[in-house]
Amino acid sequence: MKVKLRKKKSKFMKPPSAKSPGVPLSRLAEIVGGEIRGPSGGLISGINSLREAGPGEITFLVNTRYAPELEKTRASAVIVGPQAPETSKPVLITANPYLAYARVATFFAPQPDHPRGVSALAQVGEDCRLAPDVTVYPFVFIGNRVTLAEGVCLYPGVYLGDQVRIGSDSIIYPNVSILAGTVIGSRVIIHSGTVIGSDGYGFARDGERHIKIPQVGTVQIDDDCEIGANNTIDRAALGRTWIQSGVKTDNLVHIAHNVVVGENSLLIAQVGISGSAVIGRNVILAGQAGVAGHITVGDGVMVGGKSGVAKSIPPGQIVSGNPTMPHQTYLRTRMLIQRLPEMQQQIRAMEDRIRFLEALIEKGRSAHHGDQS
Amino acid sequence: MKVKLRKKKSKFMKPPSAKSPGVPLSRLAEIVGGEIRGPSGGLISGINSLREAGPGEITFLVNTRYAPELEKTRASAVIVGPQAPETSKPVLITANPYLAYARVATFFAPQPDHPRGVSALAQVGEDCRLAPDVTVYPFVFIGNRVTLAEGVCLYPGVYLGDQVRIGSDSIIYPNVSILAGTVIGSRVIIHSGTVIGSDGYGFARDGERHIKIPQVGTVQIDDDCEIGANNTIDRAALGRTWIQSGVKTDNLVHIAHNVVVGENSLLIAQVGISGSAVIGRNVILAGQAGVAGHITVGDGVMVGGKSGVAKSIPPGQIVSGNPTMPHQTYLRTRMLIQRLPEMQQQIRAMEDRIRFLEALIEKGRSAHHGDQS
Amino acid sequence: MKVKLRKKKSKFMKPPSAKSPGVPLSRLAEIVGGEIRGPSGGLISGINSLREAGPGEITFLVNTRYAPELEKTRASAVIVGPQAPETSKPVLITANPYLAYARVATFFAPQPDHPRGVSALAQVGEDCRLAPDVTVYPFVFIGNRVTLAEGVCLYPGVYLGDQVRIGSDSIIYPNVSILAGTVIGSRVIIHSGTVIGSDGYGFARDGERHIKIPQVGTVQIDDDCEIGANNTIDRAALGRTWIQSGVKTDNLVHIAHNVVVGENSLLIAQVGISGSAVIGRNVILAGQAGVAGHITVGDGVMVGGKSGVAKSIPPGQIVSGNPTMPHQTYLRTRMLIQRLPEMQQQIRAMEDRIRFLEALIEKGRSAHHGDQS
Repeated sequence: MKVKLRKKKSKFMKPPSAKSPGVPLSRLAEIVGGEIRGPSGGLISGINSLREAGPGEITFLVNTRYAPELEKTRASAVIVGPQAPETSKPVLITANPYLAYARVATFFAPQPDHPRGVSALAQVGEDCRLAPDVTVYPFVFIGNRVTLAEGVCLYPGVYLGDQVRIGSDSIIYPNVSILAGTVIGSRVIIHSGTVIGSDGYGFARDGERHIKIPQVGTVQIDDDCEIGANNTIDRAALGRTWIQSGVKTDNLVHIAHNVVVGENSLLIAQVGISGSAVIGRNVILAGQAGVAGHITVGDGVMVGGKSGVAKSIPPGQIVSGNPTMPHQTYLRTRMLIQRLPEMQQQIRAMEDRIRFLEALIEKGRSAHHGDQS
Repeated sequence: MKVKLRKKKSKFMKPPSAKSPGVPLSRLAEIVGGEIRGPSGGLISGINSLREAGPGEITFLVNTRYAPELEKTRASAVIVGPQAPETSKPVLITANPYLAYARVATFFAPQPDHPRGVSALAQVGEDCRLAPDVTVYPFVFIGNRVTLAEGVCLYPGVYLGDQVRIGSDSIIYPNVSILAGTVIGSRVIIHSGTVIGSDGYGFARDGERHIKIPQVGTVQIDDDCEIGANNTIDRAALGRTWIQSGVKTDNLVHIAHNVVVGENSLLIAQVGISGSAVIGRNVILAGQAGVAGHITVGDGVMVGGKSGVAKSIPPGQIVSGNPTMPHQTYLRTRMLIQRLPEMQQQIRAMEDRIRFLEALIEKGRSAHHGDQS
Repeated sequence: MKVKLRKKKSKFMKPPSAKSPGVPLSRLAEIVGGEIRGPSGGLISGINSLREAGPGEITFLVNTRYAPELEKTRASAVIVGPQAPETSKPVLITANPYLAYARVATFFAPQPDHPRGVSALAQVGEDCRLAPDVTVYPFVFIGNRVTLAEGVCLYPGVYLGDQVRIGSDSIIYPNVSILAGTVIGSRVIIHSGTVIGSDGYGFARDGERHIKIPQVGTVQIDDDCEIGANNTIDRAALGRTWIQSGVKTDNLVHIAHNVVVGENSLLIAQVGISGSAVIGRNVILAGQAGVAGHITVGDGVMVGGKSGVAKSIPPGQIVSGNPTMPHQTYLRTRMLIQRLPEMQQQIRAMEDRIRFLEALIEKGRSAHHGDQS
């Protein structure tokens, strides 16, 4: 099972311009499904920001805030949207310029050229099935009965427990720990330092002591997920913790045991999801938000940063705050919180005026009734 | 000091039913100290949830919310509490069904069958004392003068600095870093990616620059603690950071230098505790809560999720909010925050009514006094 | 490129008193630029806290709260500020006793005595330039074309991607992952488990799917930075993520792609900074604070714990809250939030009084006009 690591000169991070003289703008138009306007000049060999791009590079205008920089850029061409301002530059017009940027940047991105095979400095357990073209770097530990599909790349310091299965072309970055029984799909990316399949946090009280509840379930991560750095995704107590296809998590995200995260949901940095919560599809949880256990966040819900989701949220809502409320209400209340000192003064002033009115009326009634007290 | 890793076929995560035909329900009743009611049928070979359990498995009913599923379960027996609804199933009645679940699940949990000894691919320093039955996997680094008691298991990628001591049967999961001088008790579990004994965050200002204060203290973690994944527990500036016995931390918890966490306290995911804070016994800090430095949180205190503990809290209180307040006050105030727009309208309406009253009275007085101005 | 690890007996964490009989107080006065008052007794061989220090040790009084312990300490001398209370102990008076503590503690701190060279159990790539006196421990992976300046120490489990450059005397603690192209200055300390150069979180929508935007920029960390444990610092999408000299981050801090953190700024534990935010010089972000993307936090700004910085902040301000407001306003509003139940009662009571006044006046007017309706 040990294959000598075949070394090839790595091209990782080598600028692509060194490899190729570039492509005509028309080639990029094909890639993004866009239309060229203006002079279709020389070859394009890279992509860069409006400010940093130079001749031979293409750039992009997504945020109209940066429109004034359009004329100043030294780029040879610009990806723009349908409403972009006029310019003398060659432009590539597309309905979604940000997506076009992603596609062109992917086209130009340098591809790391990993050696194929299993390093002699890696350790592989018994009864494993490794496709012939996997990359297993030094200091990787692979337990027993592990399955790696074609194109899987395990960077140094990766740990795979027994019976882990990883689908084709998935990349596991350095020092990731994937505990026994975890199942990972194809084209999944897991960034450094992340832990998948650690025990869920489950204890039963016995007087003052806490008795560990064995966490004997697993974690399943479906195709096309990307998990950020230093995440923690716990195994289920029973059954599975399930990250569905296309989910993207940022760094330092915590996902507790038995959580389900629906397809294509986005979990921004430092989000925490408590046990058995169900997050729907296409949900966005902004940074540092927290979700309570055993609740459901409906499909398409957007949760603002630092929010505390204490109750289930129906599909499609935009919420913020701790506890969460409709985002519009949140904006009003948080503005009013800053006006509390003013409100308190208003209340005090009104109390004075009421007291004055009461005194006046009392005096009036006394006078009217001829009271002399 | 180097012992060849003796490989045995691992049984980790292998279903226990493959090993044994199961045990009679009476055996489980002994384990949990419970009473059997109903037909005491066949052998039990595993435990599962109400929905997932099948014949030959026992399940449990803890939350009465799930009572309707009791009749539908395919399980051969059910662990219940004294107030459980009637059922035709064989039941195992116990005062604390959740604890009984923990004990039965532990009974059935597959035991990983680690090879014993020190892998030839591990590195062990000088003057170490390792009990003969420890497990040291490949790519473990052990510094000088380290002590490992019997049954300690160090997974791949673990780092132990000089003079670390670990008590019997403790498990250190992959890629954990335990820096020099840390002392860990018996039956401690430390999950992957956690860092123990990193330098505390201490600097003295020198003009605009920050001069590092050497962190020369240590970390002590007592018996029966469980530390979650990707935690950070800093060494003391002087003296020790001290996690007392039975403490359980969830994932991504931060504990700063010189903190003391009292026995059996629970720190839920993403909690942060600032330097020199003292957390009492049996405290619960819910997820994403933060504790300020140099304060004391009394025994038995419960702090709600996302709370900010800025001042010391007397024993036994239940608090929430940022800053914390009694939980009942918090529930009222957070409800009122959402009513702020309504309160603002009430204030405006009252101002109008007062102004109208003032005008009326002024008019009345003018008329009364015959003013013509 | 492989050099056998030369083992020397490590002195790491060995008490310094074993090495030296100590130094006279006058030597320490020179180091801190202070003045001695009282009897200048025996030799000093270490520093410790007021409570823990014993004969032969010096201690320090920084916080006047601890002044009563001054007479009780068993230390042989005390570092104090100009306003310190009278004492019979020998004192070392200095303008900044905390800084003096830092300097004296550094003087006495044991120096780890790392073996020099590259362990035979480390893996070094092609075309690397390693200074002769670097320390590369076992299980370190170094990619191709990496540069390590003199005195760099890489602890076990460190991963350096291709073309990483590290300046002189920098220390990279165990299990740190530094991805390709990262540039690190001199005298930088990076604590265990931290990830530098992981991909920034950038995706373009394509219908319901998220298309990865290649993150082809780098991370630059300048001289004299200290990065805490389990941090995540993402590489830029284009260009660089830039941590300027003297920045100190605590544990579990997240810094997104293209962020700039200015010189000498302090980021306390669990802070998160979103993409392209610019943090000025000498900024303090307290624990669990969050900063939104694409905004600027001015030089010298102080942000309170758990704050949410949603908009740019001019230089020099002290802010707190979510969203942030001037700290003084925050203190008033957060006090008023707790008074909301009281304010609500005041509003209700005023409404009753206004209603009563209205009824009175209505009655008066009716009576006056002789209405009988």
